[in-house]
Amino acid sequence: MMSIGVIHTPYREHDNIPIQGRFKPAVEGWLELDKEYESGLNDLERFSHAILLYHFHGTDKVAMTGKPYLENEPHGIFAIRNPRRPNHIGLSVVQIRSIQANCLHFTHVDMLDGTPLLDIKPYITHFDCFPDAKCGWVDKHFADGEIPSKAIKKDD
Amino acid sequence: MMSIGVIHTPYREHDNIPIQGRFKPAVEGWLELDKEYESGLNDLERFSHAILLYHFHGTDKVAMTGKPYLENEPHGIFAIRNPRRPNHIGLSVVQIRSIQANCLHFTHVDMLDGTPLLDIKPYITHFDCFPDAKCGWVDKHFADGEIPSKAIKKDD
Repeated sequence: MMSIGVIHTPYREHDNIPIQGRFKPAVEGWLELDKEYESGLNDLERFSHAILLYHFHGTDKVAMTGKPYLENEPHGIFAIRNPRRPNHIGLSVVQIRSIQANCLHFTHVDMLDGTPLLDIKPYITHFDCFPDAKCGWVDKHFADGEIPSKAIKKDD
Repeated sequence: MMSIGVIHTPYREHDNIPIQGRFKPAVEGWLELDKEYESGLNDLERFSHAILLYHFHGTDKVAMTGKPYLENEPHGIFAIRNPRRPNHIGLSVVQIRSIQANCLHFTHVDMLDGTPLLDIKPYITHFDCFPDAKCGWVDKHFADGEIPSKAIKKDD
């Protein structure tokens, strides 16, 4: 698995990152794709969102359980989005702001600065959007229609 | 990047796979996670959907453009979901049917039989669902609210 570019964000440390970037929509990041892949971005500018896959380079630990920031209970690693997972692959849906040459500017930022990029996929509502999905331990935190304060900043 | 399990599906050849599994909802598949990761599945059974990341093992070619099955026009590889991408990582949102020990049965199947599994993430509507996303070249194919016939079977 090789890096195909680098993600630049304002987050130098884990502590300031929101648990999901859509909860801090004003923050901007950008990715710099290696020049050899630049033409692969053609037509992505007509999409509003992209799925970024990247390497959780901040840790090389693997654990089968973890405690999400929203909870005091541990859950299985495949039921949470914690970095300490086999292969350390991260996934975020970001909002595309602009694409110029090999650079893509986006909001919905939740990665560390310097994160190695693995792939970019177009977000396709017709394939990827399940508004009625049941979301286990997560749903209760969003039950009142508000964004939980712990989702904005990891400060538990 | 190492395999953490194997995905079993009825699809032995590319030709029969729907472009997205949700368009052939009755087809069932299952994944067999390596035994050492079994406890990582705890609490995933309370989610209705999961995101599977896997290795597109059917090809080792990489191309910067490709023609999606729905189109006659080529598009940049990062604007389509074609396997011939750097790192050959595939992504599908599947519907969880049951989890027993290290096996997860699911529908929304669109992988080849024998596909190496890289990661399982819980699908979280609050993070992953963008009903109003603009989807470039894809939207026109779904404009009348119907699933295009080419989306069911790759037979162009």
